[in-house]
Amino acid sequence: MRKIGLAEIEDIALGAALLGAGGGGDPYVGKLIAINAIRECGPVTLLDPEEIPDDALIVPIAMMGAPTVLGEKAINGGEYEVLYNMVSKFYNKPIFAFMPIEAGGVNSMLPIAAAARLGLPLVDADGMGRAFPELQMVTFTMGGVKATPMALTDEKGNCVIFDTITNKWTEDLARAVTMSCGGSVSISLFCMDGKTLKKYGVKNIITYSEKLGKAIRNVKECTNCTPEENFLNFTEGFKIFKGKITDVLRETRGGFNYGRVVLEGIAEFKGKKSEIIFQNENLMATVDKKVMATTPDLICLVDTEAFVPVTTDALKYGKRVMAVGLKCNEMWRTPAGIELVGPRYFGCDADYIPIEERLKTEEISINV
Amino acid sequence: MRKIGLAEIEDIALGAALLGAGGGGDPYVGKLIAINAIRECGPVTLLDPEEIPDDALIVPIAMMGAPTVLGEKAINGGEYEVLYNMVSKFYNKPIFAFMPIEAGGVNSMLPIAAAARLGLPLVDADGMGRAFPELQMVTFTMGGVKATPMALTDEKGNCVIFDTITNKWTEDLARAVTMSCGGSVSISLFCMDGKTLKKYGVKNIITYSEKLGKAIRNVKECTNCTPEENFLNFTEGFKIFKGKITDVLRETRGGFNYGRVVLEGIAEFKGKKSEIIFQNENLMATVDKKVMATTPDLICLVDTEAFVPVTTDALKYGKRVMAVGLKCNEMWRTPAGIELVGPRYFGCDADYIPIEERLKTEEISINV
Repeated sequence: MRKIGLAEIEDIALGAALLGAGGGGDPYVGKLIAINAIRECGPVTLLDPEEIPDDALIVPIAMMGAPTVLGEKAINGGEYEVLYNMVSKFYNKPIFAFMPIEAGGVNSMLPIAAAARLGLPLVDADGMGRAFPELQMVTFTMGGVKATPMALTDEKGNCVIFDTITNKWTEDLARAVTMSCGGSVSISLFCMDGKTLKKYGVKNIITYSEKLGKAIRNVKECTNCTPEENFLNFTEGFKIFKGKITDVLRETRGGFNYGRVVLEGIAEFKGKKSEIIFQNENLMATVDKKVMATTPDLICLVDTEAFVPVTTDALKYGKRVMAVGLKCNEMWRTPAGIELVGPRYFGCDADYIPIEERLKTEEISINV
Repeated sequence: MRKIGLAEIEDIALGAALLGAGGGGDPYVGKLIAINAIRECGPVTLLDPEEIPDDALIVPIAMMGAPTVLGEKAINGGEYEVLYNMVSKFYNKPIFAFMPIEAGGVNSMLPIAAAARLGLPLVDADGMGRAFPELQMVTFTMGGVKATPMALTDEKGNCVIFDTITNKWTEDLARAVTMSCGGSVSISLFCMDGKTLKKYGVKNIITYSEKLGKAIRNVKECTNCTPEENFLNFTEGFKIFKGKITDVLRETRGGFNYGRVVLEGIAEFKGKKSEIIFQNENLMATVDKKVMATTPDLICLVDTEAFVPVTTDALKYGKRVMAVGLKCNEMWRTPAGIELVGPRYFGCDADYIPIEERLKTEEISINV
């Protein structure tokens, strides 16, 4: 148990941007929402999952929709109390703690705001260890946890409760309502007891996010290594490519951002070409048409100077970026995990091979 | 209090087809659903609204979506118990009786099936006295009754509860879910107490529907009048036009059927031309470009031989029909009613003038 306040939020947001793997939305707006809530209501108590009683009701908080919309159609701050009331009425039980369902991107921040406003603790765990575009894509789905009852509310006060036969149906119906509400809503879903959380949650992800953020902030403070080496070191990342953005293709369809970014190699990658395709999050990276990394491993683009993460929304012609692969949580590497969020689910024509295996030979060839 | 069984259902369905004013769906599939339920569970008790205690929980039952879809993607019969449980859990109270929200079209039949299956009585009232395309278009809206909490379920078992800030928002959000569920779902909405029902309901509409159906069935059994005179007599209808269908334009947009039918005059209307525009239901009828009738009055097309109602779905080139106007319920003729369902709401460039006033001069000129 410890407190998180304004300083911690800055680092968590920066780390969350990296864990967003290009998607999940820039945490910037979420950070402002969390800062506001903490300024008004004080710091939030962060609980280690092991501190949660087995029968406690744990409720994830998130926004659904396009994070870019959140910047224009913000929340009013009362949504979290509305969600609290809907969920606790449904279970006829008080909520013990909130948690993020998605540690990457903007959804890392909103549960902090919710916890501050309701005076509830926040659990140091999520259901992804990164960001994913669809709501059934959480480790809890593999544990047979239902997304529903799912509570949804918008900034105007419309409320909807879903109870569906599968988590894919929750996604479809809630997505339709989200779009009708203007493209961005606040939600609670995958409500669970403490026991389930401890079994299927990605633990201590907020603390990890904060550690990443702090390290990125101090990336240049390494005496015996370059900032790039330092970055790859503390992220335990695999360098996939370094290049200049020469092409960005984007398509918004069914509430998702689909697209592809093309990089022309620089430095040791000069003469090579990389392509990264995405659906909100980066899905697959190729170098000279050879697959180097795929979902569920994280494919992150970072600025080559400051090493701050670059979201798919911010991809621009001429920008120099490094593509880095991070290992995903072990649960995603099981057959059930790969079925849920592997490359084939997203329509990529590649099998999942863990990034460290894919890059083993490649790394050697580059280092030689 | 009386019982309704298979014989009554036939007449109610026929009357409901007329009250559908071209829309509301052909009650045929609904009739099969109601017949099935009564065969399995026995006749239904029909209560006069005056028999309802003031504090009783009254719950309308309907289908939302395209009635044509209902013919292909039927209900499984268990929906009504699911709706019962959702609503009664929400209010923490048993449901006293079901009722139709829409007496015209297929929604006249489904509450009968629900009442039979749950062994509950049915109230002889609705919220329209006809059919309308959008869910906020009920007399209860004028009484300030909220559509929500609205319960929705599909034949697969997906469940959604809406609680919205306005009835228009209920329409928008529930419509989005309905379309995601495949275009047809079962719903409960405008739940109310007996007192409100008695104040704002359109009373004895099921009995009226049955009377209309019986009269249409026996339309030729009049010794001193033609079937047409007989029909106009018992419906208290105004003859707008008689003609042959020469053109039908249809467009399906946002889950509605929009369109226009053109009639070439026959008999005393020879040489004249009529046009009727519709959004599910017929909205406005013109003869030689002069407006003869508009919503909320009912514009019904009936076969010129058997006087059975012809829905907009069944409009076909060459078919001979009579266009008849029926007075709507008085509540629709108030400023609030006209705002909700008057011609301007639907984008028709005409003010509402009661049909009997519009046709007063016209009638004389035709009868002369």
